Amino acid sequence: MTGNKDHEGHEAKKEVHSHPHPHTHENKPEAKQEKKDKVAKPAAKDKVKESVSELVSFLQRKGFVWGPEPEIYGGIAGFYTYGPLGKLLKNNVENMIRKTFGAEGFFEVECPIVMERKVWEASGHLSGFSDAVVTCSKCNAVFRLDHLLGDYPETRHFKEPKEFLDFIAKHKVKCTSCGSDFKQEVKKHDLMMRTTIGMDTEAYNRPETATTTYLPFLRYQEYFRKKPTFGVFQIGKAFRNEISPRQHVVRGREFTQAEAQFFIKKELKNNFDQFKAVENDELPLWDYKAQEKAEPVKKLSLKEALVKGCFKSQAYAWAINLAFKFFRNIGIPEENIRMRQHFPDEKAFYADDAWDVEVKTKSFGWVEMCGVHDRTDYDLTQHAKFSGTELMAYDEETKEKYVPHVLEIAFGSDRPTFAILDTFYDQKSVDEGKTTLKIPYKMSPIPVAVFPLMKKPELAERAERIYDSLNKEFVCVYDESGAIGRRYLRAAEAGTAYCITVDYETLEGEETVTLRDRDTEKQKRVKTSELRDLLRKLLLGDKKFEEIE
Amino acid sequence: MTGNKDHEGHEAKKEVHSHPHPHTHENKPEAKQEKKDKVAKPAAKDKVKESVSELVSFLQRKGFVWGPEPEIYGGIAGFYTYGPLGKLLKNNVENMIRKTFGAEGFFEVECPIVMERKVWEASGHLSGFSDAVVTCSKCNAVFRLDHLLGDYPETRHFKEPKEFLDFIAKHKVKCTSCGSDFKQEVKKHDLMMRTTIGMDTEAYNRPETATTTYLPFLRYQEYFRKKPTFGVFQIGKAFRNEISPRQHVVRGREFTQAEAQFFIKKELKNNFDQFKAVENDELPLWDYKAQEKAEPVKKLSLKEALVKGCFKSQAYAWAINLAFKFFRNIGIPEENIRMRQHFPDEKAFYADDAWDVEVKTKSFGWVEMCGVHDRTDYDLTQHAKFSGTELMAYDEETKEKYVPHVLEIAFGSDRPTFAILDTFYDQKSVDEGKTTLKIPYKMSPIPVAVFPLMKKPELAERAERIYDSLNKEFVCVYDESGAIGRRYLRAAEAGTAYCITVDYETLEGEETVTLRDRDTEKQKRVKTSELRDLLRKLLLGDKKFEEIE
Repeated sequence: MTGNKDHEGHEAKKEVHSHPHPHTHENKPEAKQEKKDKVAKPAAKDKVKESVSELVSFLQRKGFVWGPEPEIYGGIAGFYTYGPLGKLLKNNVENMIRKTFGAEGFFEVECPIVMERKVWEASGHLSGFSDAVVTCSKCNAVFRLDHLLGDYPETRHFKEPKEFLDFIAKHKVKCTSCGSDFKQEVKKHDLMMRTTIGMDTEAYNRPETATTTYLPFLRYQEYFRKKPTFGVFQIGKAFRNEISPRQHVVRGREFTQAEAQFFIKKELKNNFDQFKAVENDELPLWDYKAQEKAEPVKKLSLKEALVKGCFKSQAYAWAINLAFKFFRNIGIPEENIRMRQHFPDEKAFYADDAWDVEVKTKSFGWVEMCGVHDRTDYDLTQHAKFSGTELMAYDEETKEKYVPHVLEIAFGSDRPTFAILDTFYDQKSVDEGKTTLKIPYKMSPIPVAVFPLMKKPELAERAERIYDSLNKEFVCVYDESGAIGRRYLRAAEAGTAYCITVDYETLEGEETVTLRDRDTEKQKRVKTSELRDLLRKLLLGDKKFEEIE
Repeated sequence: MTGNKDHEGHEAKKEVHSHPHPHTHENKPEAKQEKKDKVAKPAAKDKVKESVSELVSFLQRKGFVWGPEPEIYGGIAGFYTYGPLGKLLKNNVENMIRKTFGAEGFFEVECPIVMERKVWEASGHLSGFSDAVVTCSKCNAVFRLDHLLGDYPETRHFKEPKEFLDFIAKHKVKCTSCGSDFKQEVKKHDLMMRTTIGMDTEAYNRPETATTTYLPFLRYQEYFRKKPTFGVFQIGKAFRNEISPRQHVVRGREFTQAEAQFFIKKELKNNFDQFKAVENDELPLWDYKAQEKAEPVKKLSLKEALVKGCFKSQAYAWAINLAFKFFRNIGIPEENIRMRQHFPDEKAFYADDAWDVEVKTKSFGWVEMCGVHDRTDYDLTQHAKFSGTELMAYDEETKEKYVPHVLEIAFGSDRPTFAILDTFYDQKSVDEGKTTLKIPYKMSPIPVAVFPLMKKPELAERAERIYDSLNKEFVCVYDESGAIGRRYLRAAEAGTAYCITVDYETLEGEETVTLRDRDTEKQKRVKTSELRDLLRKLLLGDKKFEEIE
């Protein structure tokens, strides 16, 4: 429990815990969370649980998400497998990240997962990234002290194990699982997964992609030919050894992080070329004062938000707008998104602007999906100091070197994937009609299904040929088993956008098939020669189903 | 060094070391490798080294691959970052895996990287996956005993540290780096990267994706509705704690594995529906007898190869043909691919058919890129035994349960990405002309570049508009800096397929631009209204550049 004793150590600890991304699992978010929840009024706990397990069982049954894995060995909390449909959806989410950031000139990179100790010393993760825990003497349940003693603010400044243990004894705090006493020891639980490279080089599975993305800064300068502003992003696995993983894939121990870094000269942040094009875009903002006063979210244009002092820079406003665009691009309805500002005491000491993107889920209420932070020159300065390598840019006009600032958009692909499933899962009882996964068409895991009307060789042969031709461009399934109505149902449950049926009319004259729209359940007869072009237009949103003649 | 003492333990060790994938780094591949190399006659060592470093420096400069990472901290062998161009290419390789396997009905899954100890006990990795090593007393270099003593076959059956150390002393074996004596101890070097889940659950970063893919077998049955044959594949990170990583990304410590598993009833392997469609496809086969007799590779149809006894089953022939298709799909020339059969003593004891796909590289000669193995019922049986979960299928006709066999196609995306770069890098001296990366157009990292002829606002504005429209569908760059010739050169070095130039003619009448073909350097004038359709057709291979009117 060293590192907390002096002011600097404490700051470093704070820094890491406020690190802006959805998997931060800060030491003290609960207090803030409570504050938030009082305002946000989430559904009652039992209700939440019920809808989760219904959704989770649907996701398992249909092949979206399985786990905790390895299931056949009993499973360990926080590890999941994406099944065929889940992986296709997750790929679509990741491709939408590529599209959204690619359109703004960001380039993707892929850095190693395993990095040596020194990197994590520099980033601050190593000193700050552990929890003090106690263990139940009877059921062996493990509790984080800050959670267990959350109702006792006087314990927040405790440092020595003895202080905690004495307090627990005095206030008769017991195991919340079985009611027994705790073992008389405080252990340090490391949130990083430690491993070894070579014979004995201490290393860690990264707890985020961000730190690994900063490191090749000099290489980026070479690639972008030393332009003063450029952006990179990374999509990849990260690991947090949570004591109690929860909320399905929302808080796993292994997860896919996606983080974008925009490097920019400090002086350009408020003289930012790309701002002009988006200044009138509107965002649903919930600043910290509105949160305190329990006022609602307000829609403001970026320009207005800057005037109001919500953001300190044009570049930051542009960055948070980009984050918002991503969630709109994957189809989350605007009314289910809000941008929540961090409280002044919630953000990192070096951070300028700090907001989260939150999405309203049926399962867990408002969930933090993304953090957008102005990290100033903090990270490049730290890594320059620890590595002994100068990480600076050169301004050819002023002939001066400078450390660029980093604007960071930190999210992942697990939570957005879950948010889509949670939002568009439309469960119905048998009486009510059919269960549908009303995923936005462009995000549909399997956008196209091809069916022969009946299991007859002449229909199957034609249907297979159509399937082969469409499969070159779209993810397709071919399905001939069961009644056609049952197959439509199955496709709707999988979120499939369009079903193509080959019937006896297909075999006559000019080849045509029926094209069935998932949501309206309407069918149109179309020529197979025009099918591929038509489907592309429909899926890209260049044409509407109603417009088909 | 237990586990070698009894016959069973020895077999288990052998099994793991012969595990069929490109990152196996078997304990004893060198003997086999020498045998191979004598026949294959690779380029002289110095020549190879030279061309590697030239390529590697090009890859670093252009933003393909950086490392070893973290570079600013000195770097650790075996870890690399894919820069912007490298990551785009790697994504194209991975999407081609999806396309190739998707077309045959395989579905992608994503399983956890970190899995508990018991999984690796069952797979055999834990007992078999370590090397005995000695360390130089002076320079601290670490050597695998089987490598160091490779020329002394009598040491192959040594088990006790003392046997090795006495032999080293007697034969005066010295450090090959500095010529000093070794420390008097034999250490066990673990090839798996160990970590911890929760407080104290021993776990490992997976050394392959395959094992994690077998585990949800019962879930696959549910998803595929218990059809007797189905295929899944996984693309993801895996880790091997090599003592001496080498050959750039070809043998890294962290790498991206891609492995496809096809589950099939034993009895169907030679009564296999999908065989008919491919039975006349030809493969360049190099069976183990031809290797022994130094005979050349022979082209045989799958049907002929079955008759000749090269493969034991139709299903296996189909699987190895699928692997071949993938390497052809990413553009590796047919003459640079060969299928090499394992020697009878090289393959795992349970394996039926075992061949590798090898690709000829300029840098390293013939490199193993993929292993295709009939793993029979071995893995499902092992995991059923260790997990206590029945992993069987049910045949509705015979009313019998059975353990399906697994055909495995095991490769990765690092080696194919490297193979493409190595194959198509056409380095030229200044006198000879320009250096080009002649990557197949469809695999081009940035297929399209848009240039205004000169840096004039009226051209730039139009060029940016065209860039925005194309960027919706293709990965594009916009570049306005430097002479147009210099920009064409830069694009050719990046492997960019087509350059679009906006000039003063563009501003007149019907909007047109020039479209420049990378390899022929020819230009055609095309209407911008037709550009997107045209580029799609060119990149999909549906139209040729010469055919543009």
